[in-house]
Amino acid sequence: MKVYSFGEEPSVPLDTVFMKEAYKEALLAYEADEVPIGAVIVANGKIIGRGHNLTERLNDVTAHAEMQAFTAASNYIGAKYLHNCTLYVTIEPCVMCAGAAYWTQISKIVFGAFDEKRGYHSLNGNIVHPKTEIVSGVMEKECAELMRNFFLNKRISKT
Amino acid sequence: MKVYSFGEEPSVPLDTVFMKEAYKEALLAYEADEVPIGAVIVANGKIIGRGHNLTERLNDVTAHAEMQAFTAASNYIGAKYLHNCTLYVTIEPCVMCAGAAYWTQISKIVFGAFDEKRGYHSLNGNIVHPKTEIVSGVMEKECAELMRNFFLNKRISKT
Repeated sequence: MKVYSFGEEPSVPLDTVFMKEAYKEALLAYEADEVPIGAVIVANGKIIGRGHNLTERLNDVTAHAEMQAFTAASNYIGAKYLHNCTLYVTIEPCVMCAGAAYWTQISKIVFGAFDEKRGYHSLNGNIVHPKTEIVSGVMEKECAELMRNFFLNKRISKT
Repeated sequence: MKVYSFGEEPSVPLDTVFMKEAYKEALLAYEADEVPIGAVIVANGKIIGRGHNLTERLNDVTAHAEMQAFTAASNYIGAKYLHNCTLYVTIEPCVMCAGAAYWTQISKIVFGAFDEKRGYHSLNGNIVHPKTEIVSGVMEKECAELMRNFFLNKRISKT
């Protein structure tokens, strides 16, 4: 085992720490046979909202991970604006979720993998609020792989 | 009182009948000091979902009239797709709600007045599903006037 001296420990970027939490949410969706997307919302280094995709279980297209995380975070802080908050989500938000993010005026969105088909960038990158900072590619490989596995299994189970 | 003989009665277009129901929902929002937008969803001539804007009361930007109506209608029919359904909404949907409408694959959207600032057309008219028929301008004057009155009163109460 390598022994590090003080201040020399390899650090994990904060974005990765929280994306791992979003990924855990995505795993919950995967286990529930839902498209595996997960999200958390962070304020001052604390998770204040979580969500994973539940559209099948709830028969509700609005039950995306981000939408539930927005509602949970707003409920937690008692305000509809998510200033000074960051959304971590495993896959690029769709138009609906990006539109919701606009209304929250959330400060930052960090997502894992791009969604080439239904991600909001494919339509218009300006859907989110102009003050919202966007970071992409955090744990991109893992987030994308979880999606690929899910749809691969779906195709196999159909044959 | 004018007496009509059979078959001569003036008919009210069906879209107006249901838009009046959406307008009633908008009035509920108005009375609750919410931006006055209301919606209903209709299938086979029957209302299967209702909603009015509750973003302030719930501290939740996702609580738009349409979103609640989508959830209610899906819950009613036990399915997430709203094929053969029509959304009636007093004001043009925003990007979030149009994005949700895409996922529902709803057959038709009828709205009252355009929202020049935040309506989805201002960004991209193709957000909704390609199979969704769009009708605008039903009770346009009344729907727009309700919004104008609301914001006028807001400005007056601030001075």
